[in-house]
Amino acid sequence: MTRYLLSGLLLITFAHTALAQTIKRPRDYGIKIGVLPTGKLNAITDVPGVKVGQVTLRQGDNVRTGVTAILPHDGNLFQQKCPAAIYIGNGFGKLAGYSQVDELGTLETPIVLTNTLSVPTAADALIDYTLRQPGNEQVRSVNAVVGETNDGYLNDIRGRHVTRLHVLDALQKAATGPIEEGNTGAGTGTVCFGFKGGIGTASRKLPATLGGYTVGVLVQTNFGGVLQIDGVPVGEELGKYSFKETLDRSGDGSCMMVVLTDAPLDARNLNRLAKRAFLGMAKTGGIAANGSGDYVIAVSTAYRIPHESKSPIDELKLLRNDNISPLFMAAIEATEEAIINSLFAAQTLKGDQGRVVEALPVDKVLEIMKRYSRK
Amino acid sequence: MTRYLLSGLLLITFAHTALAQTIKRPRDYGIKIGVLPTGKLNAITDVPGVKVGQVTLRQGDNVRTGVTAILPHDGNLFQQKCPAAIYIGNGFGKLAGYSQVDELGTLETPIVLTNTLSVPTAADALIDYTLRQPGNEQVRSVNAVVGETNDGYLNDIRGRHVTRLHVLDALQKAATGPIEEGNTGAGTGTVCFGFKGGIGTASRKLPATLGGYTVGVLVQTNFGGVLQIDGVPVGEELGKYSFKETLDRSGDGSCMMVVLTDAPLDARNLNRLAKRAFLGMAKTGGIAANGSGDYVIAVSTAYRIPHESKSPIDELKLLRNDNISPLFMAAIEATEEAIINSLFAAQTLKGDQGRVVEALPVDKVLEIMKRYSRK
Amino acid sequence: MTRYLLSGLLLITFAHTALAQTIKRPRDYGIKIGVLPTGKLNAITDVPGVKVGQVTLRQGDNVRTGVTAILPHDGNLFQQKCPAAIYIGNGFGKLAGYSQVDELGTLETPIVLTNTLSVPTAADALIDYTLRQPGNEQVRSVNAVVGETNDGYLNDIRGRHVTRLHVLDALQKAATGPIEEGNTGAGTGTVCFGFKGGIGTASRKLPATLGGYTVGVLVQTNFGGVLQIDGVPVGEELGKYSFKETLDRSGDGSCMMVVLTDAPLDARNLNRLAKRAFLGMAKTGGIAANGSGDYVIAVSTAYRIPHESKSPIDELKLLRNDNISPLFMAAIEATEEAIINSLFAAQTLKGDQGRVVEALPVDKVLEIMKRYSRK
Amino acid sequence: MTRYLLSGLLLITFAHTALAQTIKRPRDYGIKIGVLPTGKLNAITDVPGVKVGQVTLRQGDNVRTGVTAILPHDGNLFQQKCPAAIYIGNGFGKLAGYSQVDELGTLETPIVLTNTLSVPTAADALIDYTLRQPGNEQVRSVNAVVGETNDGYLNDIRGRHVTRLHVLDALQKAATGPIEEGNTGAGTGTVCFGFKGGIGTASRKLPATLGGYTVGVLVQTNFGGVLQIDGVPVGEELGKYSFKETLDRSGDGSCMMVVLTDAPLDARNLNRLAKRAFLGMAKTGGIAANGSGDYVIAVSTAYRIPHESKSPIDELKLLRNDNISPLFMAAIEATEEAIINSLFAAQTLKGDQGRVVEALPVDKVLEIMKRYSRK
Repeated sequence: MTRYLLSGLLLITFAHTALAQTIKRPRDYGIKIGVLPTGKLNAITDVPGVKVGQVTLRQGDNVRTGVTAILPHDGNLFQQKCPAAIYIGNGFGKLAGYSQVDELGTLETPIVLTNTLSVPTAADALIDYTLRQPGNEQVRSVNAVVGETNDGYLNDIRGRHVTRLHVLDALQKAATGPIEEGNTGAGTGTVCFGFKGGIGTASRKLPATLGGYTVGVLVQTNFGGVLQIDGVPVGEELGKYSFKETLDRSGDGSCMMVVLTDAPLDARNLNRLAKRAFLGMAKTGGIAANGSGDYVIAVSTAYRIPHESKSPIDELKLLRNDNISPLFMAAIEATEEAIINSLFAAQTLKGDQGRVVEALPVDKVLEIMKRYSRK
Repeated sequence: MTRYLLSGLLLITFAHTALAQTIKRPRDYGIKIGVLPTGKLNAITDVPGVKVGQVTLRQGDNVRTGVTAILPHDGNLFQQKCPAAIYIGNGFGKLAGYSQVDELGTLETPIVLTNTLSVPTAADALIDYTLRQPGNEQVRSVNAVVGETNDGYLNDIRGRHVTRLHVLDALQKAATGPIEEGNTGAGTGTVCFGFKGGIGTASRKLPATLGGYTVGVLVQTNFGGVLQIDGVPVGEELGKYSFKETLDRSGDGSCMMVVLTDAPLDARNLNRLAKRAFLGMAKTGGIAANGSGDYVIAVSTAYRIPHESKSPIDELKLLRNDNISPLFMAAIEATEEAIINSLFAAQTLKGDQGRVVEALPVDKVLEIMKRYSRK
Repeated sequence: MTRYLLSGLLLITFAHTALAQTIKRPRDYGIKIGVLPTGKLNAITDVPGVKVGQVTLRQGDNVRTGVTAILPHDGNLFQQKCPAAIYIGNGFGKLAGYSQVDELGTLETPIVLTNTLSVPTAADALIDYTLRQPGNEQVRSVNAVVGETNDGYLNDIRGRHVTRLHVLDALQKAATGPIEEGNTGAGTGTVCFGFKGGIGTASRKLPATLGGYTVGVLVQTNFGGVLQIDGVPVGEELGKYSFKETLDRSGDGSCMMVVLTDAPLDARNLNRLAKRAFLGMAKTGGIAANGSGDYVIAVSTAYRIPHESKSPIDELKLLRNDNISPLFMAAIEATEEAIINSLFAAQTLKGDQGRVVEALPVDKVLEIMKRYSRK
Repeated sequence: MTRYLLSGLLLITFAHTALAQTIKRPRDYGIKIGVLPTGKLNAITDVPGVKVGQVTLRQGDNVRTGVTAILPHDGNLFQQKCPAAIYIGNGFGKLAGYSQVDELGTLETPIVLTNTLSVPTAADALIDYTLRQPGNEQVRSVNAVVGETNDGYLNDIRGRHVTRLHVLDALQKAATGPIEEGNTGAGTGTVCFGFKGGIGTASRKLPATLGGYTVGVLVQTNFGGVLQIDGVPVGEELGKYSFKETLDRSGDGSCMMVVLTDAPLDARNLNRLAKRAFLGMAKTGGIAANGSGDYVIAVSTAYRIPHESKSPIDELKLLRNDNISPLFMAAIEATEEAIINSLFAAQTLKGDQGRVVEALPVDKVLEIMKRYSRK
């Protein structure tokens, strides 16, 4: 299906390392956030059919950025739209595609995350992708959904190094299975709580008595506040948190959150679910500072809304309002854990203008966690 | 000014106990939530000029409810409105007054909290109060702001025992200074995380380098989730949390939050501030379940918008967007602490149909906190 | 079912005149607004099952107010909720019930319209009504939906003459069939474009090729601007419009709009439909001035959401987004016509403090319409 | 200031005709919409300091598109932001920049209008423009505001013929003074009410007694409904309107509206003002169909919000809520007239796949207007 994208891409070599999953995740250390069980991979890809593809750009001294693409299903998303909603936690951001999702309640492109100034490039690439997809020959309107955070501290963001091909490549390589976390894809150059941030993911699988649904979350972490890990005041213990002394901008930054679920929710309830991811961010100590672009995109894979239909009526089976609360809890927990996962996976990185952002000092953190009886 | 309200009230005897402040608050036990300093009283009344008045109804076996009134200033609020905003976290609630505050950006009555089915009575009383106030003889439109949570588990809520006089009495007795927490006023019959909830309050005073402003919060706690106290998993340790086994409604309920500040914010930034209180609730483990009415009313006392003015122009001095983040952090911390304060203050209560809700077992909690090195 | 309400009501005599339908409506004069056909009655009651009940209060020199109740179906609305949405055009108003409808997407009480300061009374009455309804013995939470406009120019609004019994009476006498327009129910004392306003209603029935659905609208008109009747500049011709000379408050006031349809829409699309009623108001020359409370409540009768259900899933058949536009057009047309209908039906009225508001001079208007070739 | 943009542009030849202002506007024929006086040019450029620049792309058989840029002032807009708001009438559109304007209440780039699939290109160009502007060397975050409508009926929209240079050129040639209407800039290929649409503009200047402020509007018209010109049912008379017979998509399309004013409004009141432009669109017979992207961007030029400031406080003089209604009326009237102006100016155009869209038959329209005594 995406073979037509291949030409031209062969020339590009990505600094794409495959070592990710050798990094231990917080759960491997015994840190268990929340009360609900995780999915098998503890990743957004626990939601059946969901694929993620990432392209990492590490070039020279100053390019530290990338692209992360999330595909709710691998069919033609424009023709078979997913119910979706976007919740804006703090809107200091450049997310593309908000109003149409809000109006119509559907997602018609994959979700792409990248850096702030590359949103137009990524949106353009999503238009390319959609126009070229077999079956879309008559399509003249595409609502590209692109999220971002600002990696301009470590990345030469003004250089806008992400190209359409990078985006198309991320879409093409999207796969089910484990997801690389940390300094990868759209998280390559991000900073979180003063440490190296990045991509993180987690999931929850509700027990059958609560519906049996899966909620998967993927985050791009680039924000500030007072870091708490599973409730432990790690930021305070490490002496590093926002507004410790003066009114710097240390709280600024952004958090992009993507929530997928196989629960049959409509746009209204997906919006409510999205809002809970924002609560999960709060539990890590995030404050959604003035300069934050905190957005949550929530999508259900449970059913599809065809672009064209012979019938004027869609027949839907939707979860009732009064059965949704466990999903809310799942979204809170998975988001909290995805953020912490991003911090554990991210590595110290040197970037633009020789700036260095240190990784979360995992050993020290584990010691602190132990002191607080949390592992 | 409110002398005209007195007749009739003399016949009523309130089960209004004065012992409240003998109860130790979490800070007295060494539990310090957040990194910012509190105001003197660690109460909403740390914001200069703010007054709170409460009326508690404990009658017979089944009346367990009340009224809590918050006055941003003690002038004629209709004639001298305060900038204000209301943020709706989860809108399963009956708050009165939302749309006008949202449209005009001002508050023109005191804020009254009570139980769900008594909102109309309280709104009516606020209209009484406003129409009768000297200077308001020509007033023909009043936007009464009333919040609520549902105390129908312990209280005979269908009996609607709150009367206009109770509301007027709460307004009349409003005072600066310490505030009774726990089973008092609108918190008399509420339940939180499966324990007795109630009224709680807290504040933060920013250091001069961060602006020096005060943020005060008052909450009426009646919600569920997985209780965390300063990050410690108390709910899990006590074996009591929402959806522990089945899809009961244990997560339902509501949290009313009132945020006052002397920072010069307009309605737009007050809305943003209000949103952060919702994040503070998240940090206690609240999940904003489907059945929650989670509302935040935020008000600035820094300036007033006169109802009538000879000039078509208001001259305002407003805090810039990029100086607001420490206030966000303050609102998060104060809300989190106010909720925990409500739980520490609330007492075991027997109510309607012989139902009993136990107080948070403070001794056990302190032991848990110790085990987690949190005090 | 409502027999228990009867005692006490017998003592009350309403100035309820039955002559309404002898008044000619604009269509009787050949004024045809829009391009779509009307329903049989050209009334909100063309939507099958919808009932309207009104109580008119004309007492002494100064009481000129009332109550209009709209019931989407005559079952137990709390147990069998209707999908619903509320759109806020301009929020300078006191409508009760907004946030829960917005959050949950359902209506659980009849809709009651009255005057601004009687909203709490009406909400209280709706709680009475709901708590007492057979089957609701366990109900402890009711989201009463009450709209209003301010009739304080002709009515002694500060006297709050509407009682719970008036509201219960309006609910009880609700019936299908023709609806009295003009100085009746909640429109008794209202003023519109400087003329006597009131209750108006209209409907559209889509041809089968466009879905065959009915859209019915009922309005309570109390607003200003520059009156246009079917596009004809009647306000200018009569020399009466807002801001003709100075910055008076002549544009202020409000318009409550209720839209019912049998089209199977969910809350998201009902919100969109509601927004179009606001456009219909614009076509009459309304400007939604600063002091306006312009709200639209939209409800579908096509299906019901049961309060309790054994299944966690609701099976729904919903109209697709791309089939909704004719309904939008129907809502615009019916709202425009309902407003004009209210003006044609309303009669000159003398009220509080001897004030008189003249009826629209229908003869002159017809002459103007003729001059502009509109009849 | 923008000289650095010049290289490269010299190679491009635009089919940019200068004859526009020989076309008579509706007012030249005696059609006077509304009751308020216009500004001198009856254009958005009546607001002091506002500049508009347009680039028209008519190439070969199938390129019929362009760019329209609006600059609120000619300084460095990023460093000296304008208060702004965006109102979403119907969100089936791809407007870029919504959430940050909504969150922060400011505009930091010029506004660019173009076609649907060229939004990313235009946003990218606005980033170019901003990054390169002297004084912005440290800027790493830019919220580009780009609106669009879909000209894909006459234009080979899938070809995405608009380039960054076209956008930069439109920005560069922005000027005060008269504005070309009709088939120009972003309106080159649009269709409105089944006739050729395009760019239109109009303004209102309030008399001194109402504040003396100017409201200017520019529209890109591409929508459907039942055309009314100054209230006259032109669409019906010409037998051309949406859903005349079947459920086609004739109502679809979009209307981009830009409202500038020198009235000192903050973002909250600019949002309210923006909403009134949507009402103006309604008065032309627009129905905001499902497929419409109807957006209004409202900006005040009365004061600026500096990007950086030594003071944490902004001192502002803002128009009070109760003085805003005449501005609402002005926005309604100017939008209605701007839309009609676009139709009168647009010319019959042949475009992609040999499709032809006829201009509004002005002679016939004038005859109809006469028949309805409207000129």
